Amino acid sequence: MAKPFGELALIDEIRAAQASGMRRAGKRTRAKRASSLVLGIGDDCAILRPPRGYEVLVTTDFSLEGRHFLRNLHPPESIGHRVLARGLSDLAAMGAKPLAAFLSLALPGDLVADRKDRAWLARFFAGFNDLARAHSVPLAGGDSSESPSDHVLADIVLLGSAPAGRALRRSGARAGDAIYVTGSLGGSAAELTSLQQRAKLSTVRLVPRQIDPSPRPHLYPQPRLAVGQALLRRRLATACIDLSDGLSTDLAHLCRESHLGAEIHAETLPIHPLAAPTQDPLALALNGGEDYELLFSAPPAARIPRAIAGVRITRIGALTRRKVITLIDTHGQRKPLIAAGWEHFNRQG
Amino acid sequence: MAKPFGELALIDEIRAAQASGMRRAGKRTRAKRASSLVLGIGDDCAILRPPRGYEVLVTTDFSLEGRHFLRNLHPPESIGHRVLARGLSDLAAMGAKPLAAFLSLALPGDLVADRKDRAWLARFFAGFNDLARAHSVPLAGGDSSESPSDHVLADIVLLGSAPAGRALRRSGARAGDAIYVTGSLGGSAAELTSLQQRAKLSTVRLVPRQIDPSPRPHLYPQPRLAVGQALLRRRLATACIDLSDGLSTDLAHLCRESHLGAEIHAETLPIHPLAAPTQDPLALALNGGEDYELLFSAPPAARIPRAIAGVRITRIGALTRRKVITLIDTHGQRKPLIAAGWEHFNRQG
Repeated sequence: MAKPFGELALIDEIRAAQASGMRRAGKRTRAKRASSLVLGIGDDCAILRPPRGYEVLVTTDFSLEGRHFLRNLHPPESIGHRVLARGLSDLAAMGAKPLAAFLSLALPGDLVADRKDRAWLARFFAGFNDLARAHSVPLAGGDSSESPSDHVLADIVLLGSAPAGRALRRSGARAGDAIYVTGSLGGSAAELTSLQQRAKLSTVRLVPRQIDPSPRPHLYPQPRLAVGQALLRRRLATACIDLSDGLSTDLAHLCRESHLGAEIHAETLPIHPLAAPTQDPLALALNGGEDYELLFSAPPAARIPRAIAGVRITRIGALTRRKVITLIDTHGQRKPLIAAGWEHFNRQG
Repeated sequence: MAKPFGELALIDEIRAAQASGMRRAGKRTRAKRASSLVLGIGDDCAILRPPRGYEVLVTTDFSLEGRHFLRNLHPPESIGHRVLARGLSDLAAMGAKPLAAFLSLALPGDLVADRKDRAWLARFFAGFNDLARAHSVPLAGGDSSESPSDHVLADIVLLGSAPAGRALRRSGARAGDAIYVTGSLGGSAAELTSLQQRAKLSTVRLVPRQIDPSPRPHLYPQPRLAVGQALLRRRLATACIDLSDGLSTDLAHLCRESHLGAEIHAETLPIHPLAAPTQDPLALALNGGEDYELLFSAPPAARIPRAIAGVRITRIGALTRRKVITLIDTHGQRKPLIAAGWEHFNRQG
């Protein structure tokens, strides 16, 4: 019996996307990549040869329609970009260099039934491959299936490498260390809110293909790989985590793993330009999530540059021996900072 | 806003399962494992240190309810076992040793809503951990989410290691090589058919917890890791693939990657005892799928043992320069062997 949606067809599609991505990535990175990726798509496993003296880092992240994105809100390029960005950001948080990506993708039957609908898949891979090329990460394998529901289901796996024993962890911070964030906060939640408001006013396709992703923190977040690698190389950070759930939640993770508390000064938080004019910029910066910036700690006397790899670095507080996380507002008032990073889409979403 | 199904809760569950699995695995394997798995669940990435001179193999496989299993047919222990077996079998096919597993798991809200329903998850992990312990593979990370539908969604990632340049591939076979299979064929499809027939006769829970999985080729398939590793170590095989889709389809993959054809002798096929009494044992052996045996090639003069690691090895045909796959029946009649491995469950399944 023929499969209603041949896995082979999708695998061929992915293989073509990978080949195209690797061709366009140019000669500069090919030699380096070839030495890590020995065998890509087409066998039972991919084969990687990590550089000698390096460890292998692994992260996996679901991107499920209705939980992490909505097909009537996110353009396909954004979905492809965001699927990969989630994994790359985890590598960034540990200072790793990407070795290879693996994508498991399940599509509803209607998305592959005819030529026209396959455009969705092509646009998904356009977004995926643009980001993959920007960071020279080959798509080395994965799995494909017809989705059992009408949801697009993706799971991304990223492998990276870091010098043995040097990867940045959540657990390395010490009491008294200063706390820093990269870039600015709240932009992703602000852009999402504005997309949702526009969606209510319109039933036509919402968002055109984005050429310059930098001002679109929700649709095209930029994982901070260069910053993470610089922090590792220059031994600047004692601990690091990426801001996926939101500052309030991710800071709690870092504190928990380091057995510490923290004090954050609200007035120092770098607010994203899209968040600044909203009703409650501070709430977006603290709890909005999906900014994919890095949060890291460094000894209080360490000289931390004002920018790393072109990304602004801002000191926002300090770690404390007392295991409580406190927000100090502009009037000097102290209150507990509750972990309140949110999920964007409920089950009906 | 609190998450309706906290990811943290599931991560804690997985972490506990892992800790328990590693404890019970005993001291014998701990030193070896500790040297590979530097950091497990609880940071942005896991960290692995593959042995020097080894390559890293990676495979990912979806197990989606309604496509790969049915909750009203498969007991939770079987689902957990099968999720992991899919990935381990891919490592077996390349002769690799498992380094670590990563599990992304999305559950419908009702499965985690109350204590009683969480029993499903505990039984899932019991099945998963039993197989993980049997092959000393630690669960090193993953992701969790609430499912956007009423389907359980799993994606398994397996990392393994093999001596550099030595992994068994689909592409190494030469014309004239003999073709072998491990174990027996058609058992998984036969057991599945019998489970489905029993399900029609009954509305109560179907299948009790299975203690000795060996005679249950569908519910508890045994990935042939020891055989694959022996083939690699003893340099016996020129090419290898696992039988997940079915002999007719997987042989076509091996032939395609090796640029060859093949002749298979029907009378030589080792039929599983569960398949033998069915209406068409040959069809189950050729197209049933999910037997998770190995199919490999070796030079015609190579001395292949009758059993490896306690698993029977059977010669079933030979590879040919002519790129056609032919089945020769008991009367010497030749006909093309069409790749017809099937999917077990349709979208309504």
